[in-house]
Amino acid sequence: MENNIFELQYAIDTFYFLVCGALVMWMAAGFSMLEAGLVRAKNTTEILTKNVALFSISCIMYMVCGYMIMYGGDLFLSGIAEVDADAVLVDFAGREDGFRGGSIYSGASDFFFQVVFVATAMSIVSGAVAERMKLWAFLAFAVVMTGFIYPMEGNWTWGGGSVFGMFTLGDLGFSDFAGSGIVHMAGAAAALAGVLLLGPRKGKYGADGKVSPIPGSNLPLATLGTFILWMGWFGFNGGSVLKLGDISNANAVAMVFLNTNTAAAGGLVAALLTARLLFGKADLTMALNGALAGLVVITAEPSTPTALTATLFGAAGGVLVVFSILLLDKLKIDDPVGAISVHGTCGLLGLLVVPLTNDGSTFSGQLIGAATIFIWVFVTSMIVWGVLKAVMGIRVSEEEEMEGVDIAECGLEAYPDFTKS
Amino acid sequence: MENNIFELQYAIDTFYFLVCGALVMWMAAGFSMLEAGLVRAKNTTEILTKNVALFSISCIMYMVCGYMIMYGGDLFLSGIAEVDADAVLVDFAGREDGFRGGSIYSGASDFFFQVVFVATAMSIVSGAVAERMKLWAFLAFAVVMTGFIYPMEGNWTWGGGSVFGMFTLGDLGFSDFAGSGIVHMAGAAAALAGVLLLGPRKGKYGADGKVSPIPGSNLPLATLGTFILWMGWFGFNGGSVLKLGDISNANAVAMVFLNTNTAAAGGLVAALLTARLLFGKADLTMALNGALAGLVVITAEPSTPTALTATLFGAAGGVLVVFSILLLDKLKIDDPVGAISVHGTCGLLGLLVVPLTNDGSTFSGQLIGAATIFIWVFVTSMIVWGVLKAVMGIRVSEEEEMEGVDIAECGLEAYPDFTKS
Amino acid sequence: MENNIFELQYAIDTFYFLVCGALVMWMAAGFSMLEAGLVRAKNTTEILTKNVALFSISCIMYMVCGYMIMYGGDLFLSGIAEVDADAVLVDFAGREDGFRGGSIYSGASDFFFQVVFVATAMSIVSGAVAERMKLWAFLAFAVVMTGFIYPMEGNWTWGGGSVFGMFTLGDLGFSDFAGSGIVHMAGAAAALAGVLLLGPRKGKYGADGKVSPIPGSNLPLATLGTFILWMGWFGFNGGSVLKLGDISNANAVAMVFLNTNTAAAGGLVAALLTARLLFGKADLTMALNGALAGLVVITAEPSTPTALTATLFGAAGGVLVVFSILLLDKLKIDDPVGAISVHGTCGLLGLLVVPLTNDGSTFSGQLIGAATIFIWVFVTSMIVWGVLKAVMGIRVSEEEEMEGVDIAECGLEAYPDFTKS
Repeated sequence: MENNIFELQYAIDTFYFLVCGALVMWMAAGFSMLEAGLVRAKNTTEILTKNVALFSISCIMYMVCGYMIMYGGDLFLSGIAEVDADAVLVDFAGREDGFRGGSIYSGASDFFFQVVFVATAMSIVSGAVAERMKLWAFLAFAVVMTGFIYPMEGNWTWGGGSVFGMFTLGDLGFSDFAGSGIVHMAGAAAALAGVLLLGPRKGKYGADGKVSPIPGSNLPLATLGTFILWMGWFGFNGGSVLKLGDISNANAVAMVFLNTNTAAAGGLVAALLTARLLFGKADLTMALNGALAGLVVITAEPSTPTALTATLFGAAGGVLVVFSILLLDKLKIDDPVGAISVHGTCGLLGLLVVPLTNDGSTFSGQLIGAATIFIWVFVTSMIVWGVLKAVMGIRVSEEEEMEGVDIAECGLEAYPDFTKS
Repeated sequence: MENNIFELQYAIDTFYFLVCGALVMWMAAGFSMLEAGLVRAKNTTEILTKNVALFSISCIMYMVCGYMIMYGGDLFLSGIAEVDADAVLVDFAGREDGFRGGSIYSGASDFFFQVVFVATAMSIVSGAVAERMKLWAFLAFAVVMTGFIYPMEGNWTWGGGSVFGMFTLGDLGFSDFAGSGIVHMAGAAAALAGVLLLGPRKGKYGADGKVSPIPGSNLPLATLGTFILWMGWFGFNGGSVLKLGDISNANAVAMVFLNTNTAAAGGLVAALLTARLLFGKADLTMALNGALAGLVVITAEPSTPTALTATLFGAAGGVLVVFSILLLDKLKIDDPVGAISVHGTCGLLGLLVVPLTNDGSTFSGQLIGAATIFIWVFVTSMIVWGVLKAVMGIRVSEEEEMEGVDIAECGLEAYPDFTKS
Repeated sequence: MENNIFELQYAIDTFYFLVCGALVMWMAAGFSMLEAGLVRAKNTTEILTKNVALFSISCIMYMVCGYMIMYGGDLFLSGIAEVDADAVLVDFAGREDGFRGGSIYSGASDFFFQVVFVATAMSIVSGAVAERMKLWAFLAFAVVMTGFIYPMEGNWTWGGGSVFGMFTLGDLGFSDFAGSGIVHMAGAAAALAGVLLLGPRKGKYGADGKVSPIPGSNLPLATLGTFILWMGWFGFNGGSVLKLGDISNANAVAMVFLNTNTAAAGGLVAALLTARLLFGKADLTMALNGALAGLVVITAEPSTPTALTATLFGAAGGVLVVFSILLLDKLKIDDPVGAISVHGTCGLLGLLVVPLTNDGSTFSGQLIGAATIFIWVFVTSMIVWGVLKAVMGIRVSEEEEMEGVDIAECGLEAYPDFTKS
C-alpha cells in the first residue's frame, strides 16, 4: 500500500509539472501579443512569424541536443519514453527521507517543463531587435541560442556542471530559483548583442540627440500579452519548486504563486506612479513593463520573501525599469519593447536581492553568477550575430524598413483592411 | 503512512486552489479585453490602464488589510508563510471525521484564491464608468473598495462575522456559494453609485428621449474577453467548493464545472434569441452579455442544480439581462458595457433562485443578504465617490471626453496607426 | 486506509479531467480568434457570433441527447449528479488489478471532458463556410451535428458500439487516441459537404482559373487563436489518456504533452519552409496552419511515438497541409481558413500513421474507420445542408456578401471606428 502512495505522489508531481509547463508554453503567446502590440502595424506580421517560429525552433533544438547539453541524457530524447513503474518504486523505497524526499516524476514532464524555458529566453530577443532585423537571420540565431548557448549556461547553473572545469557556481553561493539570470538576463544579453550590431531604427534618434517615440500600434494586444505573461509566470515560478506532493512543498508552491502575483502588482503600481511623476501621464506601456519587471525581479527567489517584501522587490523593479528604458534611449540603444530593461536590468536586480531573504546564497556568488551568464551569452551571441551579419546580413534594407518588414519578409500585411495607406 | 495520505490530500487541495486561483486571475484579462472591445477606440488605452491598475491595487490592498478585515489574521499577511508540516498533521489527526473532514490547505493558497475575487468585484466597476471617469479618481476608489468596502461585506458573509453585531447572515439562511451577491452584485452596486454621480456619456441620451447606441470598437476583443471570463469562471466557481481531495468533494467540483459551463451556454442562446425577437438581428454583444449573465446567475449555487436546471437558470439570466439593459437605458443610467445588468440584476436573480435547489438556504435569507450587501456597498460607495467628486472631481472635461480620454489621461492612443482622424 | 488512497486517486483523476476539459473549452476561443483573424473585417462579427453560438449549442445538445447516444445514460444527464462515495469504493475494491486498474472518476467530469470535443468538431465547420453562409442555417446545422451526427460516429468508435449492427471498428484494429478522425476529420467532412453546396466566395476564383487570395484582416488574432489551440491541445490529447493517477498513466500523460508540443513545432517549421520554397516568403498563415496540421496528425496517437518521431509526423502534416490548401483551390473548393486541409487531409494522415508506432492498430482498420467516419458524416451532413438549403437557404444574397455579412446578419460592425470607407 505504501507503493500506492508513492504512485500517487509521482502522478501528482508529474501533473503539477505538466500544468506549470503548459502555463509557461502560454507565455509564448504572451510575448507574441506584447511584441505585436508594441511595434508598428507594418511590422506586425513579421514579429508574429518570428515568435511562432522561434518557439518551434526552441522545441526542436532543445529536443535534438539542448536538453542533453544541459542535463545529460541522449540526443533526440531517445529513451525518455521508457519508464518502468516498478523500477521507479525501487527509487522511492531507496530514499533515505522517505515520503518527503526529493522529486521523482516523469522525465517527459521534466523535459516539457524545461523546454518552454528555452523558448522564453529566446522570446526576449525578438522584441528587442524588432522592426529591422531580417527574419531568417533571426531564426538562424535562434537555432544556436536554443541548441547551444542557453543549454551551456543552463548546465553551469541548474545542471550543476562546472564552468569550463574552472568553478562551480552553486559552490560559490549562486542561487537563481526560476531564472532571473539564467533565463531572463540571458535572453537580454543575447538581445543586447544583436541590438548593438544592428543599430537603431531609422528615425528613432535624431542628429540633435532628440529621441522620437515610436508608439506601439495595438495597446490592447500589448495588455493582453502582459496578462498572459503574468498568468504564465505562475507556472514559470511555481513549477520551479520542482515538487508539490507533501505539505512543505505544497506550501512553498503556494507562497511562490502569492509572491509572484504581488511582485507583479507592486511593479505595475510603482512604474505607473514613476511615469506619472516623470511625464505627467498614466503611461500604459510603462505600467505593463513595470508588471513584467516585478515578475522578473521576483523570479530569482519567490519562495523566501514575505508577501510584503515581494511587493517591495517588485516595486523596485517597476521604478528601475522606467529609468533603464530612459537610459538606454540616452545611449541610443534602440529596444522597441523595452526587453533589455525588463529582462536584463531587472534580471540583474533580481539576482542581487536574493541574499536579502535567502541565507543559502551570497552576494558575491550572485555577482559571479551574473557575470558568468552575461559574459558567456553576450560574447557568444556577438560572435553568432557577427557571423550572420557577414554571411547573410542581419538588417533589412532601408526601403524595406520604410515600407515595413511585413511585405518584404512575409508578403502579408497584418491588418490589410485597416491601415491608413 | 496515514500521515503521508494526509500530506497528499493537503498537497492536492492546495494545488487545486492554486490552479483555480490562476484561472480567476485570468478573469482580469477577460474584463480588460471585454471592456476594451466595448468602448470606442479613443477611450481604449485608459480603460486598459484602469484594468491593469485596479488588479494591482486589489492585490496590494487585500494583502495590506483586506484579507485581515475579511477573515482575520495579520496585516501584510505576516506569518502566512510559516507553516509547520508536523503541526498540520496534528490538525488532520484531530478531525473527528478523518479523511473526509473539512479543508486543510496552505494559507497562502487561500489568500491567492481570495485575492483574485476582490479584483473581480472591482473589475465590474471599471466597465460601467468607462469613457468619462477620471483615471486617478477611479484608482482612489479602488483603494477603498478593495481595502475596506468589499472586505467588510465579505466578513459578514464568507467570513461568518455579524453585521455590526446585529445579525449573522448565515443564521438567517443566506447562502451565496461563489459570490453572485458577495462579488458580482457588490461590484455592480459600487458601479451604480458611480454612474449615478457621474452621469451619462455626452450624446448617449437625446433631449427627446432617444437613445443613441455607441457601438464598441473591437468586437473580437469583446468576444475574447467573454471566453476568458467563461474559462476563468471554472476556477471561480470550481474553486469555491474549497476542497477536492475525496470522492464527494471531487464530484461536487465536477458538477460545478459542468453547471457553470451549461449555464453560460443557456444564457448565451437565450440572449441571442431574445435579441433576435426584439431587434431582428443576431446581436453579438447581447449574446456575450447573455453568457456572462448565465455565469453570474449560477454562481450563487452551482453545485446542487441538475445540468438541465442550470441551463434553465442560465437562460433566465440571458433573457433578463437583455431587458435590464433596455430598462437602464430608459432610466438614462449609462453603462457602456452592461456591467450593472450582468452583475447586478443577474446577481440578484442568482441569489433568489438558490432556495429552489438548495434546502440550506431560505428565500428570506437571500433577500436580507442581498439587501445587506447592496445597501452597504451602494451607500459607502456613494460616500466615497461623493468625496472624490468634491475633492478632485470624477469626470473628465467635456473637451477631453470629445477628444477621448486616452490622450488626456494616458498620453497614448491605443491604435495610432489605424484610427480615422 | 486503502479506501483513502482510492479516494485520492479518484479525486486526482477527476481533477485532471476537469483541467484538461477546461483547456479544451479554451480551444473554442482559439477557433474564434483564428477564424476572426482570417476573414475580412466586414465578416468578423458574424463569424464570432457563429463561434460563441455553436459552442453553446454543442453544450446544450450534447447534454440533451448527444452524450446518451454516444455513451448511454439518460436524457438531460439526469442522475449524473448523484454519486454515492461508498459505492464508488466498492467499485474500486472489485477491480482485479487494484490500484493500477481502469479509470474511475466523476461522471460529471467525463461529460465535461467529452462535451468540449463536440464543440471542437463543430468549430471546424464554421471556418470553412465563413463569409457567405447564413447564420441561422449554420446554427440549425449545429443542432443536428452536435446532437446526432457526431454522437452516432462517436458511439461506433469511442463508445464501442457497432456500426448499424454490422461490424465493430475496434475489432477491426481501428485506433484513434484523441480524435484525428473522430473529431477533426469528422468536422472537416461536415464542412466539405457545406462548402460544396454553398459554392466559393464571390471573386475568389476567376473565369480564367485564376485564384485571387483574400487575405485575413487581423493576423495577430489568427496567431493568438493558434497559440490558444496549441495550448488547449494539451488538454485535448493529454486528457485522452483518461487516467493520471499511477506511474504508468502519469508517464503516458507526460509523453502525450511532449509529443503534442513537438508535433506542432515540427508542423510549423515544415510549413514555413515549404511555403518559403514555393512562394519565396515566410507565409505566416501557412506556418500557423502547419502547427495546427502537426497537432491534428499527432492526435490519433500521441502516446507511442518517440519525440523525434512525433516531430517528423508533425512535419509531414506541415508539408501536406500546404499542398492540400493549394489543391483545394485548384478544385475551386473555397475554404477561407484552410479548415478542410488542416483537419480533414491531415486528420486522415494522422489515422494512417498510427500503425507505424502502435501495434494494436492495423492499416486496414484505420482505412475502414476513416471511410466509415467520412461517409457517415459527409452523407448525413449533405442531407442536412441540402434540406436547409431547400427550406431556408444557406447562402446570403450577393449584395449582403458584398456589403459583408456583419451588417446583414448581426447589425453590428466588428470594428466600426477603423475600417476604411
